[in-house]
Amino acid sequence: MNKVKPVCRIAKAFAPATVANVGCGFDIMGFAIEGIGDEVEIELLESNAESIVIMKGPYGQLIPSDWAMNTASVAAQAYLNYVGQSDIKCKLTLYKNLPLGSGMGSSAASSVAAIKAMNQIFNQFLTDVECLPFVMEAERIACGAAHADNVAPSLLGGFVLVQSYQPLHVCQVNFSSTWYVVVCHPNTILRTSDSRSVVPQQVSLRKAIQQSANSAGLILALINRDKALMQQCVHDELAEPKRRTLIPNFFQIEKSILAADGFNCNISGSGPSIFSFCETLPQAETISSIMQSGFLEVGLQSETYISPLLAKGAHVISYE
Amino acid sequence: MNKVKPVCRIAKAFAPATVANVGCGFDIMGFAIEGIGDEVEIELLESNAESIVIMKGPYGQLIPSDWAMNTASVAAQAYLNYVGQSDIKCKLTLYKNLPLGSGMGSSAASSVAAIKAMNQIFNQFLTDVECLPFVMEAERIACGAAHADNVAPSLLGGFVLVQSYQPLHVCQVNFSSTWYVVVCHPNTILRTSDSRSVVPQQVSLRKAIQQSANSAGLILALINRDKALMQQCVHDELAEPKRRTLIPNFFQIEKSILAADGFNCNISGSGPSIFSFCETLPQAETISSIMQSGFLEVGLQSETYISPLLAKGAHVISYE
Repeated sequence: MNKVKPVCRIAKAFAPATVANVGCGFDIMGFAIEGIGDEVEIELLESNAESIVIMKGPYGQLIPSDWAMNTASVAAQAYLNYVGQSDIKCKLTLYKNLPLGSGMGSSAASSVAAIKAMNQIFNQFLTDVECLPFVMEAERIACGAAHADNVAPSLLGGFVLVQSYQPLHVCQVNFSSTWYVVVCHPNTILRTSDSRSVVPQQVSLRKAIQQSANSAGLILALINRDKALMQQCVHDELAEPKRRTLIPNFFQIEKSILAADGFNCNISGSGPSIFSFCETLPQAETISSIMQSGFLEVGLQSETYISPLLAKGAHVISYE
Repeated sequence: MNKVKPVCRIAKAFAPATVANVGCGFDIMGFAIEGIGDEVEIELLESNAESIVIMKGPYGQLIPSDWAMNTASVAAQAYLNYVGQSDIKCKLTLYKNLPLGSGMGSSAASSVAAIKAMNQIFNQFLTDVECLPFVMEAERIACGAAHADNVAPSLLGGFVLVQSYQPLHVCQVNFSSTWYVVVCHPNTILRTSDSRSVVPQQVSLRKAIQQSANSAGLILALINRDKALMQQCVHDELAEPKRRTLIPNFFQIEKSILAADGFNCNISGSGPSIFSFCETLPQAETISSIMQSGFLEVGLQSETYISPLLAKGAHVISYE
């Protein structure tokens, strides 16, 4: 492609944390969470400079600042290559607010924020959906697989179905909702690769059919705001039965959440974070306390986040 | 339960043919077809009579008229048992308009028409959903398994998701639609049991995930009237890859339908009938001709049926 010209030199963007899998939506569904995410500022440098990554924020020291290894800079560079500007040098400052290996789409938020900032520098040359391949490429660096179930909702906001990878096809699910989601991150690490290794590679026909029914039903439950149907459908047949055993005190916490009128207790992404849907803010606060004390019972501190089910996607904060 | 009293002595009802499976909705989705179905008239007899089944209509001589073996009378008797009236004797006349082993929900239509008529005799004592277990029981007699993906849409009309069997939970998918469906029944028999025997009992994780994505996407496609999404989602990963090879000339017919702007070519139920969605009545007529000539190429006569995608469910025709 011909070179696309940058229209500004500095842009800063925010990308939210996300919950992927959503129970039965293993590898195909995800949604954005309000109020927590990563920020990236990109500044174009003189052509004789070297591109650099500056890490800031509470988790800034834990990931590589090597330009070729950092998920934010990998996404930014993929974008530059696409617009014929692979020689442009940048300073990329990543404000890393999301804990790593949390199951809250931490690496996705970094790369999505970077792409959103970079796309602003090029005057929104690409649509959000057109930017997806670059952030998925960054996910491959971070997790070993180019999944879209965190990056797509972080970029687009709301609730997203990844219907197909080849060709890539993501659908935003349009619905209105007054539901809340509570996400709790216990301070323990569960590697995505460990969490994936327990997932059986063959499943029974019966389970495949039930997963399919649950996913179809979950979409209906969202659109019809049907709490009972959501409670019936959010169960995963493929990964969670094994993964739940990897989350400390999961079953006791689940029991308490259901007793407090939470819809569910499921693993966020590949864990160790967990999430629950509920109807009201007071319920969300009760569930938040249940999750925190449940992890404390097994000696784990945790942070919780309460968000409306429908949260905004990545957005530009400033540019000049 | 205490005996419920009949309020009339004769009732007649119609139940439509149905398309089950709907591609990716293997064992969990189905919809009703307009204009073709079975009729059942039930007449209460004196208590010293014996219950009998009278078979009429083009396919009336092909199924058992034994009260304990006929799907219509099995459903009717299950209803009588439930309302505490197991001793009531009836004459059940089944107008068998649907070909057997066609994949168009033939046995389901017979039992649904019977239940609809019987429920009228008892002044609609049960809701349609409450009647489902009786018609599922009749399906067990007919097919060896108590499936709901034909009986539920035949009873309720429209497009139905069977989200769960234990407990039984069916959802009518609410949407508006101007789409059509063409169903073609070639004059050859494919036994449900043969058709089921080719379905693998273990599936890869990848296929299970794709099936789940397709089912969720198909629901979205219906609600959003999204033709492109429907075309992407209607593919089955579990049963059809094997079953398509059992349908004469399937691949050639599919190719011609897609070239004529049909959305898809899939197997209706367990076959040998096939169906295709399309946007307009002229397209439906073209697809109907394609299907018929495609089967003729391999020496098979066939009948086609054109219906709006949203068709009425079973209904009472008369009572006295």
